[in-house]
Amino acid sequence: ALIAILAGDGIGPEVTAEARRVLDALDLGFDFEEGLVGGAAYHATGHPLPPETLALAKRADAILFGAVGDPSCDSLERSLRPEQAILGLRKELSLFANLRPAKLFPGLEDASALRPEVASAIDLLILRELNGDVYFGEKGMRTTASGLREGYDIMSYNEAEVRRIAIAGFEAARRRRGKLCSVDKANVLETSQLWRDVVIETAAQYPDIALTHMYVDNAAMQLVRNPGQFDVIVTGNLFGDILSDQASMCVGSIGMLASASLSDWRSTLGLYEPIHGSAPDIAGQGKANPCAMILSVAMMLRHSLDMPAPADRIEAAVSAAIGKGVRTADLGGTHSTREMGDAVLAALA
Amino acid sequence: ALIAILAGDGIGPEVTAEARRVLDALDLGFDFEEGLVGGAAYHATGHPLPPETLALAKRADAILFGAVGDPSCDSLERSLRPEQAILGLRKELSLFANLRPAKLFPGLEDASALRPEVASAIDLLILRELNGDVYFGEKGMRTTASGLREGYDIMSYNEAEVRRIAIAGFEAARRRRGKLCSVDKANVLETSQLWRDVVIETAAQYPDIALTHMYVDNAAMQLVRNPGQFDVIVTGNLFGDILSDQASMCVGSIGMLASASLSDWRSTLGLYEPIHGSAPDIAGQGKANPCAMILSVAMMLRHSLDMPAPADRIEAAVSAAIGKGVRTADLGGTHSTREMGDAVLAALA
Ligand SMILES: CC(C)[C@H](C(=O)O)[C@@H](O)C(=O)O
Ligand SMILES: CC(C)[C@H](C(=O)O)[C@@H](O)C(=O)O
Repeated sequence: ALIAILAGDGIGPEVTAEARRVLDALDLGFDFEEGLVGGAAYHATGHPLPPETLALAKRADAILFGAVGDPSCDSLERSLRPEQAILGLRKELSLFANLRPAKLFPGLEDASALRPEVASAIDLLILRELNGDVYFGEKGMRTTASGLREGYDIMSYNEAEVRRIAIAGFEAARRRRGKLCSVDKANVLETSQLWRDVVIETAAQYPDIALTHMYVDNAAMQLVRNPGQFDVIVTGNLFGDILSDQASMCVGSIGMLASASLSDWRSTLGLYEPIHGSAPDIAGQGKANPCAMILSVAMMLRHSLDMPAPADRIEAAVSAAIGKGVRTADLGGTHSTREMGDAVLAALA
Repeated sequence: ALIAILAGDGIGPEVTAEARRVLDALDLGFDFEEGLVGGAAYHATGHPLPPETLALAKRADAILFGAVGDPSCDSLERSLRPEQAILGLRKELSLFANLRPAKLFPGLEDASALRPEVASAIDLLILRELNGDVYFGEKGMRTTASGLREGYDIMSYNEAEVRRIAIAGFEAARRRRGKLCSVDKANVLETSQLWRDVVIETAAQYPDIALTHMYVDNAAMQLVRNPGQFDVIVTGNLFGDILSDQASMCVGSIGMLASASLSDWRSTLGLYEPIHGSAPDIAGQGKANPCAMILSVAMMLRHSLDMPAPADRIEAAVSAAIGKGVRTADLGGTHSTREMGDAVLAALA
């Protein structure tokens, strides 16, 4: 199988290097090909998602993605900014279903700002829609009738877009504890009303799943108050962005959470990335936690490459490293990126 | 002075009754006039914000607002739903600046899901824009070229809308600890880019304020990880809705937090409401926490009626009641709405 490695910006290359060491140690017979992406690609080629990188991603069996985001690109026009690389990959490859599981690793009770008993009860999956919403609607700057600058972005979902992510949500719930919570803002947004209507229609095919609906403001509150109540949360692109970052901190650190972006819940094509960003403030200092990236490799082996056994081994090795007390700065420790990688490799051996 | 009392739906009337008892006990010589609003108004008059209620609100010196939201209205067309009452009042009265302070009451350390040391460090003000954003843009259902149902909502802000809330943010920060964090999603949204540009322009007038910018996903994370880092957060209508509910839970319960909606940071016209909703699941059972509503009275006395002394007395009385261990269900206790009201009144006396 061909794995595309897109390390990207900031801490992306550092954490990707550790993930690569883990893959090399497992020696699974893959081919690897690296591609430029994000600010790094812009600086080298003038575009954040060069055609060669897109072609590589399309050719590959799975994509390992580090992170994009580079403050030196903040004043570029939007189409040239690093973020367009990940948005472009998600859209071009129709990776509409983003799986973001959150669960506390034993030993990290102290890293969470939540009380240990609240944090340890967390075992949820956020399923975020990735191809629509206000992310991909028409957007721009215009001038109002009275001559004022105005920024605008159109939020929308059609029924087909909602149905496919709803199905992914019900299927995921079926494979877990049978509970699905759909999050929207139907009391204010028509996009959310359509979302809610279609989720309810889809529910007819899943009588075995306990479906609930929650407004996004309440969901943000409940994720702090009692996150243990959730099994699968399905939501749109924007609300999913916010809630999944919030949930990641509930389990201790965004540095521990991996994600998979799939084009269908049955498909094997996938992009795997940590949910953290490029963290320019600590880039190049060997401080980043590589666990989220290493755990992304495990998700890749399981979802795209049908290799559950090495996936389990990786997850157990990360658990063991954490269990031994190895802690990068985000977890309150002083171990380096490389030392965390070493600890995972030692546990793998 | 004339106070408009709009109790609304669900637990609105119960908590408003306790706030009214507090006002009566203080005997400040106000006139009170009650108005129908929300689902209650719809059922009685066919409209969630009847013209008489709007006229009363415009005539009043300040508005005490309970809560709106009624599941029996969920299938009405949007313009008739209870939520339109509060959205309509905010818009008709140009109440664009929503102040949502969050601070832990001593004694409530155990009610927060956050570790006590994290929760007690919270002392922040969320300043939410209330008159624009995706809340008030054109919205509707349409059919796509291929015949699919599609919901859409236009998100937008113009420079004047951003500037006035930015000014309110800088002014608020100046009266507090001098730190302002502007929250947006400028890496994806043009509306956010305009927001960020205008906040930066406005900053030139406030060299004494330390301004930072944060993406909303990161802000949701930081509010869990280290909420003590924030002084004033200024953000748009939608992000403010989400983040303020989240912050409320960090300090123990949404049942403790009041809010003020003002038409200008210097103006005295204001609407005061708890940040919780109508909580139909517990309505009529005497379980609701009236503190947020009682604290809304304190905010009203301070901001609209220039009566800081009785405002302080109310806040001290709520503190004393909490300090005595009186706890409604949301705070993990068994005291009723009335018992909490009694405890506040006893402390006032
Ligand atoms: C980098 C950014 C465009 C992206 C998003 O908002 O989707 C990121 O925050 C994420 O969650 O993957
Ligand atoms: C009831 C609803 C329309 C409202 C909002 O979203 O603004 C509420 O959640 C709030 O925060 O006051």
